[in-house]
Amino acid sequence: MSITVVGTIGIDTIVTPFGRADNILGGSAAYFALAAANYQPVNLIAVVGQDLPATSLDPLKTRGIDLAGVEAGDGPNFRWGGEYHLDFNTRDTLFTELGVLASFDPKVPPAYHDTSVLFLANLQPTVQQQVVTQLPQARLRALDSMNFWITSAREDLTRTLGMVDIVFMAEDELRQFAGVAHLRQAAQAVLALGPQVIVIKLGSYGALLIDRAGNYFAAPAFPLDDVRDPTGAGDSFAGGFLGYVAAILASGRDLTPQDYHRALLHGNIMGAFACEAFGVGRFPTLTSDEIAARYQQLVSYTHIEAGI
Amino acid sequence: MSITVVGTIGIDTIVTPFGRADNILGGSAAYFALAAANYQPVNLIAVVGQDLPATSLDPLKTRGIDLAGVEAGDGPNFRWGGEYHLDFNTRDTLFTELGVLASFDPKVPPAYHDTSVLFLANLQPTVQQQVVTQLPQARLRALDSMNFWITSAREDLTRTLGMVDIVFMAEDELRQFAGVAHLRQAAQAVLALGPQVIVIKLGSYGALLIDRAGNYFAAPAFPLDDVRDPTGAGDSFAGGFLGYVAAILASGRDLTPQDYHRALLHGNIMGAFACEAFGVGRFPTLTSDEIAARYQQLVSYTHIEAGI
Repeated sequence: MSITVVGTIGIDTIVTPFGRADNILGGSAAYFALAAANYQPVNLIAVVGQDLPATSLDPLKTRGIDLAGVEAGDGPNFRWGGEYHLDFNTRDTLFTELGVLASFDPKVPPAYHDTSVLFLANLQPTVQQQVVTQLPQARLRALDSMNFWITSAREDLTRTLGMVDIVFMAEDELRQFAGVAHLRQAAQAVLALGPQVIVIKLGSYGALLIDRAGNYFAAPAFPLDDVRDPTGAGDSFAGGFLGYVAAILASGRDLTPQDYHRALLHGNIMGAFACEAFGVGRFPTLTSDEIAARYQQLVSYTHIEAGI
Repeated sequence: MSITVVGTIGIDTIVTPFGRADNILGGSAAYFALAAANYQPVNLIAVVGQDLPATSLDPLKTRGIDLAGVEAGDGPNFRWGGEYHLDFNTRDTLFTELGVLASFDPKVPPAYHDTSVLFLANLQPTVQQQVVTQLPQARLRALDSMNFWITSAREDLTRTLGMVDIVFMAEDELRQFAGVAHLRQAAQAVLALGPQVIVIKLGSYGALLIDRAGNYFAAPAFPLDDVRDPTGAGDSFAGGFLGYVAAILASGRDLTPQDYHRALLHGNIMGAFACEAFGVGRFPTLTSDEIAARYQQLVSYTHIEAGI
């Protein structure tokens, strides 16, 4: 039983008011995998370019992430640059160079056929569909998407939504997709397409979870002393959430609503860890004790004792 | 033991995408009092104009709110008009006519001297100070403020902050006052002026509570099926919070951090009730059973069972 992610391996340039990093490891699959690997074994599917430095994938290898599904494409690697401002709530994209990503044709290695949880990180919806089709044995499928596909590939995205169990969307993306300002109404519009669960990412306000049975759950963000770089927070969030879910499935029992609630806290925790260092810098030294401590802290921030 | 509020009684005009109401009861003291009266007896201090219709205060009288501190001024009543847009997150002020509020000189009736909790609703900070001075026997003092005073009367507001125990601020106001984007750092700057507790209102994302001992608590907003009119939500929030706090004090025991956590939920609940009808329309029919049911619902939205 393992988690498989399909997404990007990027070469990122990140500029913040407090510093800058050039040509560092990034991409949705990298963040997701490093977060999820704290919970269960992770398989990664991506395409990389000829110019990706040989040592770039070392943080993934060190964490035991299976890279059999990482294919070397014929061309330059996907590159992205972003600049954050003082409040870290807005960012400007400095550049996006698709490179080998433009012709990404993912192939699932036979070794990945024990996948229990499949995560389709933000990618062209038809590419996401190719991976779903190749892994029919997955017990749970989840996807993330973004504004770009909502406007440019709405029909394809709608079809992909019908193929998954869990959807991660930022609140503005959800409103945009559904064409409704009211968040729970917008969530119902997505759930009507097939998914059982929608997770709404609220940025620095945390996240909400709504399921088809009408359950509603809210988790605050983990408050950080210092935000260094929010890049990858959403994918790390998905990694914490689905990592926890995969661990429950691996234990042999079925998922309960309470499991999803705890998963939402683990998502928030991993999103916060991602923000504490440039790029994926916080993950190589992250320990299970640190995760457990932060989980208990986050529980305490909303815990009401029984009684009055 | 009772709660005393000093604030405004307004004649409001409210425009939303779904309807309009002209010349209805409004004002910070009205919303606060109607929310807090669900928990403890409330005394009200305000000034009204000659043009306030005789029946305007009936909803307050019906709820048993003591109006001995409502003075009839020589001039027109305070009037405010606001227009909301589709997402209800922004509003335009259509007009603000201070009327008798411009020369408000609050006097605390002797009958209010049993006050345990004093709430200084948004008013000129020097007017707020006058009431604090006249009620030295209050066990807890709380204030709300707004952008206008932060920019136009910063020194006076800083002095008033030094005279209270609990501060309610919207997150943008807190950042503006402290000159710091990081919310917890901004909160520390306010707590350093004297208050024991700061409650940060996050609008549709709920609220945070931070105290001088370093405790941190987060409450999500109560999700509504239908928002009709957010006017007065902040004052109703303060009414639910301080009403619950006053009920604990009236029971004869000291406040614990857990009491403040529960108070934060009651604040969110009352803020949500305020949004469900135009003006103060939701409060006359509100029952203690509805409050209790919504409290349990809100607890369930963040409740993590002990265990894993």
